[in-house]
Amino acid sequence: MSGTDYRRKTLSDGPVIVLVNPQLGENIGTAIRAMANFGLAELRLVNPRDGWPSDTARAAAAGADHVVDGTRVFDDLEEALADLTFVYATSARNRDMLKPVRGPHEAVATLRKRHKRGEKTGILFGRERAGLSNEEIALADEIVTFPVNPAFASLNIAQAVLLMSYEWLQGEGRPLPFGVPESIPASKQDLFGLYEHLETALDKERYFYPEHKRATMVENLRNIFHKAQLSKQEIHALRGMVAALEGRKSRARKK
Amino acid sequence: MSGTDYRRKTLSDGPVIVLVNPQLGENIGTAIRAMANFGLAELRLVNPRDGWPSDTARAAAAGADHVVDGTRVFDDLEEALADLTFVYATSARNRDMLKPVRGPHEAVATLRKRHKRGEKTGILFGRERAGLSNEEIALADEIVTFPVNPAFASLNIAQAVLLMSYEWLQGEGRPLPFGVPESIPASKQDLFGLYEHLETALDKERYFYPEHKRATMVENLRNIFHKAQLSKQEIHALRGMVAALEGRKSRARKK
Repeated sequence: MSGTDYRRKTLSDGPVIVLVNPQLGENIGTAIRAMANFGLAELRLVNPRDGWPSDTARAAAAGADHVVDGTRVFDDLEEALADLTFVYATSARNRDMLKPVRGPHEAVATLRKRHKRGEKTGILFGRERAGLSNEEIALADEIVTFPVNPAFASLNIAQAVLLMSYEWLQGEGRPLPFGVPESIPASKQDLFGLYEHLETALDKERYFYPEHKRATMVENLRNIFHKAQLSKQEIHALRGMVAALEGRKSRARKK
Repeated sequence: MSGTDYRRKTLSDGPVIVLVNPQLGENIGTAIRAMANFGLAELRLVNPRDGWPSDTARAAAAGADHVVDGTRVFDDLEEALADLTFVYATSARNRDMLKPVRGPHEAVATLRKRHKRGEKTGILFGRERAGLSNEEIALADEIVTFPVNPAFASLNIAQAVLLMSYEWLQGEGRPLPFGVPESIPASKQDLFGLYEHLETALDKERYFYPEHKRATMVENLRNIFHKAQLSKQEIHALRGMVAALEGRKSRARKK
């Protein structure tokens, strides 16, 4: 979906994303795109299988060149984490490790709290198939896992990066990019004018029949328009519609 | 990330995902994989460019064959929506339409409420580049949009499907797939035993110096172990460690 506004400044604050031993450039690129979508900008790769830089990754990043260009490569996970104060390791499997296990929402709350204090944090993602080793996870402070369908739990790393990045920006309480356009709400006078117009037209056609049901029928009709919370323009359009229908009928009869 | 448990039953309840005019089989497949990850199972395609079935889609679905096989194709969006009672249209752009605009979280709350009442609902996603037309959006009840980085707002359709599916399963209040393993918490007696062991060893080495700072130094050390909320096993390991260090020093001195 499009909607990019290139005049706006890129957000770039937030946890560092660390990919351990990623195999496919395409996955790295898709992860980068997801990071950029939700305002993360710092990526570190530990021993990417096909080396770095990667044309495949750049293509899949779909224009997030600021993240591609800033990506740093490390031989060693410990080095990649050295300047961070708090690190989450993602895992889909139970590791029987005495580390707290959090969902993405809760993990982001912790990351945001530390971020506000000026700490530099990170989120660790493992290899496409094998994930992170227990040794690697032991270097992190806590584990984050996703509430998934147990019958189909395998998340792609780019998808896992997307979910964490999404939660990160959600945690900012960011407003939606757009809302319902302003419209002039109809006054009750306008609304009652519509009712009168409509009911007079329907009376002419003997729509409210039998007479003893009239009151209920009128009430039901009015409720329909009432709950639509019509704007001034919409009432105008509806009155035009009623007028047109009346006219069509009278014309048809004249023939 | 792996972690699939094939013995578990597939979840399959929830909104229908409708892709309008998808271009690439790979995107359809990745969307299917994301649906399956978070328990959605019903996909409808309106005029997929490269036809259906699609081998590329099946490959990208990474084993979510139950969704691939159940996918239905329509010529016409109205037909694809005919049996639904409430539909969200996704959009990254402002359409200046008098429809409520929600974030994913709020949209899912509405979908869940209606789902509980037995309603069949849907979420509509547009073409890779152009999204949905205003005419198509007009067929939906409300709009859902994602809080994204305004400088890099372009979300891939598979990513958009992933986020809605993720929110859907989150809305179920599903527990995480695993937690911290049970461990026997240490009794205070065990903890105080460790303190005594450690402090005696350190006293021998005149670690607590000068004497008037002893109380504060002891307190600081004890706090470190206190806040680690040690288990019985961990205390055992720490006492072993202290004993080993003591031993090493005495051996070294003996030489």
